[in-house]
Amino acid sequence: MIEPNDLNDPALRSRAIAAAQGQEPFDVLISGGVIVDMVTLRLRHADVGIVGPLIASVHAPESDVAYSAKVTIDASGNYLSPGLIDMHMHVESSMIMPDEYSRAILPRGVTTAVWDPHELANVAGLEGMEFAFEAARSSAMRFLVLAPSCVPSAPGFETTGGNFDERVMSDLLARQDINGVAEVMSMQSVLDRSPRMSGIVQAGLTAQKRVCGHARGLEGAALQGYVTSGIQTDHELTSGEDLLNKLQAGLTIEMRGSHDHLLPQFVEALNTLDTFPQTLTLCTDDVFPNDLHKAGGLDDVVRRLVRYGLSPLKALQAATLNAATQLGRRDLGLIAPGRRADIVMFHDLKEFAAKTVLLNGQDISHLPDAPTETNDEKRHLKLRNSFDVSALQASDFKIKAEGTSAKIATIKRPRFTEWGQRKVSVFDGAVVCPDDMIQMAIVNRFGAHQPPRLALLEEWGTWRGVFATTVSHDSHNLTLFGKGSADMALAANTIRAMGGGLAVVSDGAVLAKMPLPFGGLMQENDLATVADDFDGIIAAMNKIVDWQPPYLVFKACFGASLVCNAGPHLSDIGIVDTFSGKTLPTPVLEFTD
Amino acid sequence: MIEPNDLNDPALRSRAIAAAQGQEPFDVLISGGVIVDMVTLRLRHADVGIVGPLIASVHAPESDVAYSAKVTIDASGNYLSPGLIDMHMHVESSMIMPDEYSRAILPRGVTTAVWDPHELANVAGLEGMEFAFEAARSSAMRFLVLAPSCVPSAPGFETTGGNFDERVMSDLLARQDINGVAEVMSMQSVLDRSPRMSGIVQAGLTAQKRVCGHARGLEGAALQGYVTSGIQTDHELTSGEDLLNKLQAGLTIEMRGSHDHLLPQFVEALNTLDTFPQTLTLCTDDVFPNDLHKAGGLDDVVRRLVRYGLSPLKALQAATLNAATQLGRRDLGLIAPGRRADIVMFHDLKEFAAKTVLLNGQDISHLPDAPTETNDEKRHLKLRNSFDVSALQASDFKIKAEGTSAKIATIKRPRFTEWGQRKVSVFDGAVVCPDDMIQMAIVNRFGAHQPPRLALLEEWGTWRGVFATTVSHDSHNLTLFGKGSADMALAANTIRAMGGGLAVVSDGAVLAKMPLPFGGLMQENDLATVADDFDGIIAAMNKIVDWQPPYLVFKACFGASLVCNAGPHLSDIGIVDTFSGKTLPTPVLEFTD
Repeated sequence: MIEPNDLNDPALRSRAIAAAQGQEPFDVLISGGVIVDMVTLRLRHADVGIVGPLIASVHAPESDVAYSAKVTIDASGNYLSPGLIDMHMHVESSMIMPDEYSRAILPRGVTTAVWDPHELANVAGLEGMEFAFEAARSSAMRFLVLAPSCVPSAPGFETTGGNFDERVMSDLLARQDINGVAEVMSMQSVLDRSPRMSGIVQAGLTAQKRVCGHARGLEGAALQGYVTSGIQTDHELTSGEDLLNKLQAGLTIEMRGSHDHLLPQFVEALNTLDTFPQTLTLCTDDVFPNDLHKAGGLDDVVRRLVRYGLSPLKALQAATLNAATQLGRRDLGLIAPGRRADIVMFHDLKEFAAKTVLLNGQDISHLPDAPTETNDEKRHLKLRNSFDVSALQASDFKIKAEGTSAKIATIKRPRFTEWGQRKVSVFDGAVVCPDDMIQMAIVNRFGAHQPPRLALLEEWGTWRGVFATTVSHDSHNLTLFGKGSADMALAANTIRAMGGGLAVVSDGAVLAKMPLPFGGLMQENDLATVADDFDGIIAAMNKIVDWQPPYLVFKACFGASLVCNAGPHLSDIGIVDTFSGKTLPTPVLEFTD
Repeated sequence: MIEPNDLNDPALRSRAIAAAQGQEPFDVLISGGVIVDMVTLRLRHADVGIVGPLIASVHAPESDVAYSAKVTIDASGNYLSPGLIDMHMHVESSMIMPDEYSRAILPRGVTTAVWDPHELANVAGLEGMEFAFEAARSSAMRFLVLAPSCVPSAPGFETTGGNFDERVMSDLLARQDINGVAEVMSMQSVLDRSPRMSGIVQAGLTAQKRVCGHARGLEGAALQGYVTSGIQTDHELTSGEDLLNKLQAGLTIEMRGSHDHLLPQFVEALNTLDTFPQTLTLCTDDVFPNDLHKAGGLDDVVRRLVRYGLSPLKALQAATLNAATQLGRRDLGLIAPGRRADIVMFHDLKEFAAKTVLLNGQDISHLPDAPTETNDEKRHLKLRNSFDVSALQASDFKIKAEGTSAKIATIKRPRFTEWGQRKVSVFDGAVVCPDDMIQMAIVNRFGAHQPPRLALLEEWGTWRGVFATTVSHDSHNLTLFGKGSADMALAANTIRAMGGGLAVVSDGAVLAKMPLPFGGLMQENDLATVADDFDGIIAAMNKIVDWQPPYLVFKACFGASLVCNAGPHLSDIGIVDTFSGKTLPTPVLEFTD
């Protein structure tokens, strides 16, 4: 759903002014509820009169005016909040189509999501964007689409299915249905003032649209340099101190729920302040399908924050008014006259759970299921045929070396990676993976038909098999982790047969597989089915790996190739380090007889 | 000063990113100060590096980076705040030209003012606007000019020198140097959905600019109807309860300093909340020249709020970050990288008094005094010759009646006026003003050459003379108050000789006079001179009236003809009541022999 300037209709405003004075009936009257006022953070009994998509009046229940309404919703015993706003998310991470995402999240009270479709764009370039625009138009919920700034995330260090330079970005930003520049992840290129990234940030400033950030691990001079470029937001917080530093740097904070172990720290840091920052908003970033199905999306972030000690009113303020203000959307985020009637009715202040949801004044349970343009099988063919890899053999997954031993470069740790070095045995022309390490492989899946790039990982625990995935941020090349070159080949070929997806292999057997034929990212099934499939993958993964939270977790497999972050990462080019500019086509540094 | 998109200059951003990392010198470094952080409301030691008009870095003083700077400002022992933003004001009320206003207020730390030039527009229509645009361009401070919505404030109930209908407003709103629709004062016409006022509000919504309000005394259904029209702000607060009601209605509050007796109530109401509303901003509205000279403008509002018990950090937040956010000006209101370098250095948190002020990164004490386009005597002739009234005689100020007594309609009280009725004596063909009343007269000064309109006022205290003024909101017709038709004629003719201004007359003598030849509103002198002149008027007024604060005060004389407010008011049409639609050409209802 993309709104034209529907609230600027003179006839609508006129009818609202009349209804507010009792001269015409409201279309809908929500009576008996308690308003959670996001401005004053006070609760008060008030009735809400709605005309078309507009809130016309929020008045005391005992008013003298003889109001009438075509439809009345009884909200007795319930609270009323504005619809929640997810400030930064990727629909693709839930592995379902946007219209299914909308069907899943609207009943939970999330009415707006700022969507960075950069997974689709990395897979299919502008065709991915066209899909996103169509989906935003046809979905019931409000998707605010951003123009992905990092396609690819680190040009020259990886290859993806798209390439958005300054010119492409300027064209995208000129569109009315583009709401800004999405997370600028190539942090070092901002600091280096690379012409490409400077041009992209500049295109956002010139278009007078928001330029969103990804300031992972930045502090001190690097943080200042990054923010002074004109970048406005961050969701990549690593600690409570990092949160406070970034608030002070003037960044709009999109506090994300995807790293649950950090939320208690964030709440603790916020509770040390005498004020609740107006620049504090919430986001989900990435939600797996099973989590979305069982726990929810932004609604779940709100609940968890409250559980960790944030006042429910503040959590809701972050998710509504603060978000709307930072988006420059005065129509959203507040139950007040003249605002858009996105309203959530819920019973328990401490456990936000939507009972009734209004979107643009309409009860979403009455919305007709509109035909979705994106579901036409004859369209979006680049996304429907995005996996272009030749069949692979076990030998493709062997790290070639000569002699009897070799010094190799390793990648240490699943997060905040560092370079390591190890001396390893060489047998039969290939490196032998030591017991305490696992192998990672990346195969370009966009038609390059090159041999896999290989690396050895330290501190990734003990594996008894292989995991393969075409969901691999943000290049989404075919990525494999584990032990055993034969299992790697089997896993790769299993994915090839599905045209993209996930597979778990052990001892020559496929333990679980999940097709993701749409862009190698998504299924066109309902959420329950996709969540079930994904649960099957997780169950299989739990058999082959002993996880060690919070860092060695299944999720780490999807982010291990995010080469724009600091430290070494494997890409389809080799082991790369965008901060130092280093690229190693093979991990073998030297070998000895 | 009107900025182009100067902060979007790629070379500037590039230099700032380099300087933030210590790779290039800052143009200016403010070292040793304590930042008042408007986001977290925390104080912290930090140095501020500036490049051109841009804050490039706000870093800890003990940084490892080897920063350098062309100029260093020592801020030791001082606090640093963003420049203050006056959210709603009329330069004209200070009776000086805008460039002189800028010279007076910039050193006090007020760097931005949202200017509604509706006095100039009511006097000279679009020529008044042209003057305002030129003044905004040539003044050192940042004037954000609004398009006056109420020229006149109540069409059909008064005549002024301008007439801005929907078409004129649409043209104005298309200009880049127009920042929105100024206070919509014709409240009743909004509620009545009059085509003219609906069209004007609609023009603002269509232009996607702010539509500002004036919701004086509105509550209940009228408030809801007014706000649902799309109007976004209010500064016409009458009590602490009114403030909370209007915050809850979603209005951006521009808490004004011009009614000092209300500020303690406002502070008390705000201090009952668990949060400091992000929609709470500050304004001056109208400041007399002597007050501006002695006490200041928005800086004085901040000081008084603190004196009345508001936390200094919150008062400053309202005057900076909250204001900037509500204006949609992300470049203002925060000392953070990437923002505009409007910075005020001050010593005492509780008594905000600017010591050094930077505007766009430049110390304002070093700014060259630019030639002012508006000072050319051969230009703006309509404003320089705005007083077109024939000479008047004592008989013009007599309320005609026959017989020996008459029943007349009266206007009760200086504020929140109400209709009254009185039986009065008639002598020699004219009403005799009872001892406990005074007379008010209004003469159209825009060339209508009609006899004065007359009314009798109750509860205006005891007067021993006459006050005449061409400053009379918002029509600025010649307005007189007091006793004695001969003194009225003398006062009117004294103003006529000056081509506009103020005069105090008693017993056939002119006690004080002050020329305001520019639009009948302003002088082209320096503030000290104008303040002196105005002090002379006040001294004379204190001789002829015993004031009874807070309502019976000198200021009431300037607002008594604001016919858009509820209740009866005298205009050049007669006694009018815009809420009931009533107009009386003469107060005489009936007379008896």
